[in-house]
Amino acid sequence: MIKSRREMLRSGLGLGAAAGFGLGLKGSAAGVREDDLKTRALTRHDLTTPALLLDLDLLEANLGTMSRHAKESGIGLRPHAKTHKCVEIAKRQVAGGALGVSVATIREAEAMSAGGVKGLLITSELVGRAKIERLVKLTRTQPDTMSVVDQEGHAKELSEAASAAKVHLNVLLDVDPSGRRTGIPGGEAAVALAEKIARLPNLRLRGIHAYSGASSHVQGFEERRQHSARVMAPALETFARLKRLGLPVEILSGGSTGTYNIDTGLGGVTELQVGSYVFMDVDYRLIGGTGGPVYEDFAPALSVVATVISRNYPDRATVDAGFKAFATDRKFGPEVKGLGGVGYSFGGDEHGILLLQNATREVKVGDRLEFIVPHCDPTVNLYDRIHCLRGDRVEAVWRTVGRYGD
Amino acid sequence: MIKSRREMLRSGLGLGAAAGFGLGLKGSAAGVREDDLKTRALTRHDLTTPALLLDLDLLEANLGTMSRHAKESGIGLRPHAKTHKCVEIAKRQVAGGALGVSVATIREAEAMSAGGVKGLLITSELVGRAKIERLVKLTRTQPDTMSVVDQEGHAKELSEAASAAKVHLNVLLDVDPSGRRTGIPGGEAAVALAEKIARLPNLRLRGIHAYSGASSHVQGFEERRQHSARVMAPALETFARLKRLGLPVEILSGGSTGTYNIDTGLGGVTELQVGSYVFMDVDYRLIGGTGGPVYEDFAPALSVVATVISRNYPDRATVDAGFKAFATDRKFGPEVKGLGGVGYSFGGDEHGILLLQNATREVKVGDRLEFIVPHCDPTVNLYDRIHCLRGDRVEAVWRTVGRYGD
Repeated sequence: MIKSRREMLRSGLGLGAAAGFGLGLKGSAAGVREDDLKTRALTRHDLTTPALLLDLDLLEANLGTMSRHAKESGIGLRPHAKTHKCVEIAKRQVAGGALGVSVATIREAEAMSAGGVKGLLITSELVGRAKIERLVKLTRTQPDTMSVVDQEGHAKELSEAASAAKVHLNVLLDVDPSGRRTGIPGGEAAVALAEKIARLPNLRLRGIHAYSGASSHVQGFEERRQHSARVMAPALETFARLKRLGLPVEILSGGSTGTYNIDTGLGGVTELQVGSYVFMDVDYRLIGGTGGPVYEDFAPALSVVATVISRNYPDRATVDAGFKAFATDRKFGPEVKGLGGVGYSFGGDEHGILLLQNATREVKVGDRLEFIVPHCDPTVNLYDRIHCLRGDRVEAVWRTVGRYGD
Repeated sequence: MIKSRREMLRSGLGLGAAAGFGLGLKGSAAGVREDDLKTRALTRHDLTTPALLLDLDLLEANLGTMSRHAKESGIGLRPHAKTHKCVEIAKRQVAGGALGVSVATIREAEAMSAGGVKGLLITSELVGRAKIERLVKLTRTQPDTMSVVDQEGHAKELSEAASAAKVHLNVLLDVDPSGRRTGIPGGEAAVALAEKIARLPNLRLRGIHAYSGASSHVQGFEERRQHSARVMAPALETFARLKRLGLPVEILSGGSTGTYNIDTGLGGVTELQVGSYVFMDVDYRLIGGTGGPVYEDFAPALSVVATVISRNYPDRATVDAGFKAFATDRKFGPEVKGLGGVGYSFGGDEHGILLLQNATREVKVGDRLEFIVPHCDPTVNLYDRIHCLRGDRVEAVWRTVGRYGD
């Protein structure tokens, strides 16, 4: 019965014929969740749109490419889990040789820890009583957890909390390559701060965190290489000086999906906090690679599937994916797959407008279209679940974790 | 003990002194969730940032204002729950006289139904097998559920599914006032489509859905009034014609937070699908009201609290709230409360940059700042929980429901 239904779907019969309304498919009426796969085979056509799709073949290829790069280069990997917020993907990264994962928030750290992932580096300063309490508690469970610090007052608060709780907190000095967002510029003041941190009770200064977000999106490989080499130099020099001073620093965390094969060669970076390579997005594809204007070291494994729900005007079709389906922080929208001559324009919380200027085929109500997302990290954050495909088959349903709200 | 800690916090002692690390506060180390309030008193200072705050006094004032308006005007209310995605707020709207709530998606409808909210109007076309199956199943539980249709093919699919499942589906004809997003323009073709829908088996045509998003944000009350009157006229005329034809239509759903007191006077609109009035945002405040350039019929009850986490450059402070804390679909960012002379600029997924050009006071690492959000609906969608305040006290923690992902 299920098989014949799937065959009908593959044969391209319309909704009315293939639907099997009331014919035993009621289980799907709450959406496709983890347990549904235990009792029946499901395909991408069974998913309620909009849904976040992950092509497992492409994910595995991306994981493999980065893993091989790290092994061949002798550099460590602590991939950034803020991109995927998914324990299943973190576990695959660790299985491929990663030291653990980086995370952006205490919530993500707790969720990864609860999922059994160790070796956590929290790449944002955990300031304030609530976050410090949570860090102390997490460190009790996972003593190898690290966070970052860029200011003496904050370091003292961490030290006091650690002392009161009788734990040791691992910290990296946050050195700012150029972003003027967090961190302290590399150089004299950074060295002085490191020395102060190293003397504080119950803190263990393990090294330097230096993330250059500005380098990661420089267009053109050679321009990107030069940018990263220039802005990372003070952090590398600071790291070398701390070593010469005899401080027990061993980690310099840098790199991004755009600079993974650049920062590896800078001499001094010990591990990469690459994030987007697992999924890719329109943004990263635009930076260009060694082979041409599209960055194709990693494949676009992530997409959002949407349905055309309205088609009453000749120049446009409306899909059910808007502000709540795609992050809107980039200047460009999502990129539709397999349909040329169209543009996407946001049409509200739950609507997108496909502008059909030169559409290469007919677009009808009920058509399902897949889109490469503009920016993967904040888009994944919009979904409770990732639906994982092997070809058309839904092979797994993975939860996302650690969203804001507690 | 708790009391003395709260007093310390109020007295403005620094974090180190007030924190009470390891002194019995470990319960908060997983964040503040629903059950935490049963065992201890919590204030806004206990929340991990970024957090979504709701001022209950202001929420209640907003609910009361709209409820009184509806009663005094004799118009129905079916407020839009896509704004709050929160069963607790929907229940308060119904308790204040609302007919039910509007929702944007089948997921929201299911979640509201599971929470005991009846009288659901789903304001987007539910196209495709998965959504129609879910609508049929929901209608079995809540026969008064309504959805919308703007095209004959879709209406037939709904009819076939309803017939196969032996249920009746309630539908509104989706008439497009001007947005060219969904709906059919009012007039001859709309009347013809309504007649076809009314003849389809197992569909019940209950009226017209006509949402003018373009009117809702016209600046200036009089300009807004004229815009809405102009673009809503064809929908009103179509509604009158359907009645004259003897079709059993009884509902014309219109209105928005910007036009609630405008559409009420158009003659024909039977109920309002107002949404943002419960929370308000920067966007809606800019449209202006009858009293001046700021729209103040409703109070800004919603905010995001963030923490200053880095302060290493004289012209700026970095807060822990970025793309994942505020929706970014508007041209402007969030508006900081109680601190003048500063601008907010997005600084990445988890970071915002406060530009301190003419800051009216010092800004230090650890300071907690509250922001009115740029656009409330997609911002609420970023949080798993709303933390509800009565003054400084956390009186309730409410879950949000129906996010994409199943």
